[in-house]
Amino acid sequence: MDLLKQRIKNDAVVKKGNVLKVDSFLNHQIDVRLYGEIGREFYRLFQNENVTKILTIEASGIGIACITAQAFGCIPVVFAKKSRSANISNDVYTSKVASFTHGVDYDIMVSKEYLNSGDRVLIIDDFLANGEAVKGLASLVSQAGAVLVGAGIVIEKGFQPGGKELRESGIRLESLAIVESMDAETGEIVFRD
Amino acid sequence: MDLLKQRIKNDAVVKKGNVLKVDSFLNHQIDVRLYGEIGREFYRLFQNENVTKILTIEASGIGIACITAQAFGCIPVVFAKKSRSANISNDVYTSKVASFTHGVDYDIMVSKEYLNSGDRVLIIDDFLANGEAVKGLASLVSQAGAVLVGAGIVIEKGFQPGGKELRESGIRLESLAIVESMDAETGEIVFRD
Repeated sequence: MDLLKQRIKNDAVVKKGNVLKVDSFLNHQIDVRLYGEIGREFYRLFQNENVTKILTIEASGIGIACITAQAFGCIPVVFAKKSRSANISNDVYTSKVASFTHGVDYDIMVSKEYLNSGDRVLIIDDFLANGEAVKGLASLVSQAGAVLVGAGIVIEKGFQPGGKELRESGIRLESLAIVESMDAETGEIVFRD
Repeated sequence: MDLLKQRIKNDAVVKKGNVLKVDSFLNHQIDVRLYGEIGREFYRLFQNENVTKILTIEASGIGIACITAQAFGCIPVVFAKKSRSANISNDVYTSKVASFTHGVDYDIMVSKEYLNSGDRVLIIDDFLANGEAVKGLASLVSQAGAVLVGAGIVIEKGFQPGGKELRESGIRLESLAIVESMDAETGEIVFRD
């Protein structure tokens, strides 16, 4: 997705420790118009999959998932929560996820009411690095007996193993920009073709 | 907003401990079409305020804020983060918030880059109870020297003190549904006129 790659080139900042900072437009401050383009691109890619539900994970996936759902005719979005809160029922699907950004493990959960065996689920998230979040979300889909049609990722770090592992596992993974390499010294970002 | 009140009557569940569970359509599973109506209503209320930025807090505010921003012609959304993460700069505005739902205090923060003295900020959130989140967000706006034009809340618990306190402090608070009372035994929900 050229518009996205150009935006990353212009506005992303490469930080030490394999951090790609895109918080001026993607996941702290949000360019809602860009989200609209992203949503339409995910729709173009998955429009023939009869998607019934979009599944994402809090926090930065939620906005992208909601605007993507508009492109799919306002199908429901479900976001997995990261910690047990007072108003979630105990009747949940859960999975354990290791976070690259935060360096800790956490549990994710979705109420059983909101993922069903009849669902055809598209996972949406902003970043893919080691793929832990997508693996955890895919596990929730599997626990529900639903069909996983694929995962749509805005930015994949192609030099980390998540993308390769997920594709080899048979999941249809569509990343709108795949960063092949990046350099915190020069700021250079190279995309996979 | 009658459509919202009707939806709450139909689908919300009143739980003990003053919990109003609306996670089938508002903050776990999301009805994106309803979010669209909510966004248009916030636009109707604040359209003359020359809003330049929408400020919310992770997680469940993000989707509502993004879709509301579309109604305002795709102005930027900024969401405050709840814990210091590896790719947030130290150059942040912070405030302390006590959570009703989770029963713990936490820090919220926004990068100084994304709130500026020229901004006219509309705060958006899904729930208002004791008003701690809005107070914390208003503090970030104040620290930035920006103008707070008001706060748009989807559901206010009118029997908790946040709404009254915020209105008395001079903040323009617009809640689309104000629950005057609710009963966990009977499930009855009464709205303020």
